[in-house]
Amino acid sequence: MSGAHMTPEEFRQQGHAVIDWIADYWDRLDDLPVRSQVAPGEIAALLPDRAPQDPEPFGALLADLDQVVLPGITHWQHPRFFAYFPANSSPAAVLGDLISSGLGAQGMLWATSPALTEVEQVVLDWLARALGLPEEFCSSGPGGGVIQDTASTATFTALICALHRATGGRVRAEGVTSDLRVYASSQAHSSLDKAVIMSGLGEQSLRFVPVDPRTQAMDVAALREAVESDVAAGLRPVLVQAAAGTTSTGAFDDVAAIGAVAREHGLWLHVDAAWAGVAAVCPEHRDATAGVPEHADSFVTNPHKWLLTTFDCSAFWVRDRTQLLGALSLLPEYLRNPATDSGAVVDLRDWHPQLGRRFRAVKLWAVLRTYGITGLQQHIRSGVELARRFADRVSADERFELVTEPVLGLVVFRLRAGDEATVAVMESLNQGGVAYLSHTRVEGLAAMRLAVGGWRTTQQDVDRTWAAIAALADEVTAGSPPPTP
Amino acid sequence: MSGAHMTPEEFRQQGHAVIDWIADYWDRLDDLPVRSQVAPGEIAALLPDRAPQDPEPFGALLADLDQVVLPGITHWQHPRFFAYFPANSSPAAVLGDLISSGLGAQGMLWATSPALTEVEQVVLDWLARALGLPEEFCSSGPGGGVIQDTASTATFTALICALHRATGGRVRAEGVTSDLRVYASSQAHSSLDKAVIMSGLGEQSLRFVPVDPRTQAMDVAALREAVESDVAAGLRPVLVQAAAGTTSTGAFDDVAAIGAVAREHGLWLHVDAAWAGVAAVCPEHRDATAGVPEHADSFVTNPHKWLLTTFDCSAFWVRDRTQLLGALSLLPEYLRNPATDSGAVVDLRDWHPQLGRRFRAVKLWAVLRTYGITGLQQHIRSGVELARRFADRVSADERFELVTEPVLGLVVFRLRAGDEATVAVMESLNQGGVAYLSHTRVEGLAAMRLAVGGWRTTQQDVDRTWAAIAALADEVTAGSPPPTP
Repeated sequence: MSGAHMTPEEFRQQGHAVIDWIADYWDRLDDLPVRSQVAPGEIAALLPDRAPQDPEPFGALLADLDQVVLPGITHWQHPRFFAYFPANSSPAAVLGDLISSGLGAQGMLWATSPALTEVEQVVLDWLARALGLPEEFCSSGPGGGVIQDTASTATFTALICALHRATGGRVRAEGVTSDLRVYASSQAHSSLDKAVIMSGLGEQSLRFVPVDPRTQAMDVAALREAVESDVAAGLRPVLVQAAAGTTSTGAFDDVAAIGAVAREHGLWLHVDAAWAGVAAVCPEHRDATAGVPEHADSFVTNPHKWLLTTFDCSAFWVRDRTQLLGALSLLPEYLRNPATDSGAVVDLRDWHPQLGRRFRAVKLWAVLRTYGITGLQQHIRSGVELARRFADRVSADERFELVTEPVLGLVVFRLRAGDEATVAVMESLNQGGVAYLSHTRVEGLAAMRLAVGGWRTTQQDVDRTWAAIAALADEVTAGSPPPTP
Repeated sequence: MSGAHMTPEEFRQQGHAVIDWIADYWDRLDDLPVRSQVAPGEIAALLPDRAPQDPEPFGALLADLDQVVLPGITHWQHPRFFAYFPANSSPAAVLGDLISSGLGAQGMLWATSPALTEVEQVVLDWLARALGLPEEFCSSGPGGGVIQDTASTATFTALICALHRATGGRVRAEGVTSDLRVYASSQAHSSLDKAVIMSGLGEQSLRFVPVDPRTQAMDVAALREAVESDVAAGLRPVLVQAAAGTTSTGAFDDVAAIGAVAREHGLWLHVDAAWAGVAAVCPEHRDATAGVPEHADSFVTNPHKWLLTTFDCSAFWVRDRTQLLGALSLLPEYLRNPATDSGAVVDLRDWHPQLGRRFRAVKLWAVLRTYGITGLQQHIRSGVELARRFADRVSADERFELVTEPVLGLVVFRLRAGDEATVAVMESLNQGGVAYLSHTRVEGLAAMRLAVGGWRTTQQDVDRTWAAIAALADEVTAGSPPPTP
């Protein structure tokens, strides 16, 4: 070993200190403002503009964590982080990921660490079976699963596969053409927009299908019309994305109905269940994956959102892996090896845009084993129950209204006093630091979103958040005209 | 907190156990075969086909690490891992990444953790200055840096930017057209091939420019001819990629000469220095970034290869960030926030294909601080010196020959007895487990690559590897005809 590295003894000592720092951090989260209160540039201004010439002790970094970094952290693991969707973690996942770092294995090929590929396959088979996904999605079938970094990348990969299949592989050699079309509801996640841009199709290729104003789910009759009118115009439908739980309101598209249209016109059906899919671990929430076993060509759900697995861990499955390999497989001389040549192994570099990949399966393996199915169910049920509790408070207060029916852990609500009051209450809450919610617009009206799912969130946190919101509503609406009935 | 989570006390105890497991793992690496010896399916067969119904203790996972996982690991942190390029790690980086997991912050927006964005900007400014990159690449200038997961993603992002600039933004709305062209040498990394496929340009858009047979560097006159003939044919050159250290032999393209062609014809110049770029931290290796300050539109180098930063950490800079934002920025309602609206902050979700992102800067920050510039220089110099030592052994043995001049930590060599003997020696070495090298083909001939750069590699490891190779050469060439002069 060359000279400047930490000794094993230092590593043990500093490593234990970091573990303890994290345990202490989690312990004091409750007392920290959820959303960072700093101004732009404030953190950067505390740091020098060059790396130190000479080594600093690791302890100096730990000290700066407290003094420089923490004030600039919005605490996603805080028990009252309710914004966006959770990116929940867990002690088991953190340690699983630490193991991955310690091994430092890079799994671009089966041969560059067979266990990295095979444990990933096994763990994704476990998760597929736990969520009621079909055996075709498992590694023993014609498809298979892979851990992507994010649902954005999974969706982009699905689009690449769809283009490959729709053109009989011609896009790979010749590129895309302007007649290819992609469909999703107006509530689809922006990652699909990014995917059509990156894929070279351009935003012109993306048809947003209207939603039912009440449920916010795709109007499948309108999808059928759009596809048929495009086909009549000589255009080529390639992919339709169904949302199983939209970002704005948690709406569920009718996957089976969309699947019928997809099948009829040869579209690839990608199901984006990034947030809600993991809820299917509970039998009573198995509808989160309804239609997927029969109809989906690909499916994504993020254990890093609501299933306790430290970011990044997005689980992506395809029904037919030959499309992936056809679209993305490349074998330059320097990657050739006997195992790949034998055809007996899966090389996961062909399953996503990147080449290199770390051993992300360890953290998911740690979560699935240390929680067990029953522990995961308990976690999901706790989130759903807390969200219902909060929704009940909203319903019982005449100053507020639910914008959509609560879905799983998500409550979308507003002040009857209007957009301005709704946004003012939310901003004031976020500014105060007690809790952190984010907003959306539904049918033109501003709404707040409370997304429960953190591993440290309790009934007291939900109640305290409601109390703060109710108190702010008093302030904001004081002097306002009474709500219209 | 709901019920099934590890208690803080358990987390401390298991966390310390994991730290100790890693320290022990590193300590016993020397006695493990570098390349895993398992057969396809062997690891998967040791695991059940469903997740456990009930929780298992974390210790069961640790036990399986030894019994199930380790035999299936190819040990990238082994002192005699010389295959591909290093994906070296370090104790400081492992702990930095652990801190990131513990914080569990998600930095898609500045607002979702200001410190995540600002520390990343500062640390990439540090690295830019340490490598002699221009101030335009720093966050205070018109460009800036971002941590990507891999160089593949960085290269893809560069291509997206180039397409945006070349078409005045039209690709974003209208998609790509078949007249756009991309250039690189025949030795360019396969990630560029993947990028043109994913971008919708197709492989037809990629022009491989020949290389000088001796140096393996791009023939810039041939590049100029290709570009000019394409322009004359009505095609539109978009991007040229220069390699600062190719994967096969470590060849350096002439960035300045390529830059002149790029400027003349309005091409985006992306410099892929994934492996070699970090060597510029040493003044005597500053030529690793030669031409970049004056000519490059974007530049990538991977601290996760040779700069001690646990995978994944690929540092990517652009000269003009408006192209990134123009190409990739999307602001759905649910991501709107006052800081973004103010225009005073950078939202790093616009800088790469993904939306969500973890706090990867902590590990790079930990490396830059705890090594200091002098420690990093010492590490790079050690790799270069050990590679030279090995190259001297090769040169001194008449059964062997260097295929190209050694470059930094990379030695490309072969047996004079021919391809079959070269591959046989390498496979036999890898199979035996003492060391792990990978191969390439140079001008049609098979060669072995020894890439030094691991943090645990010493002179004894290089000598032992050479001794093993020399002994195998005896076996393989026994009875062969004497080498041709």
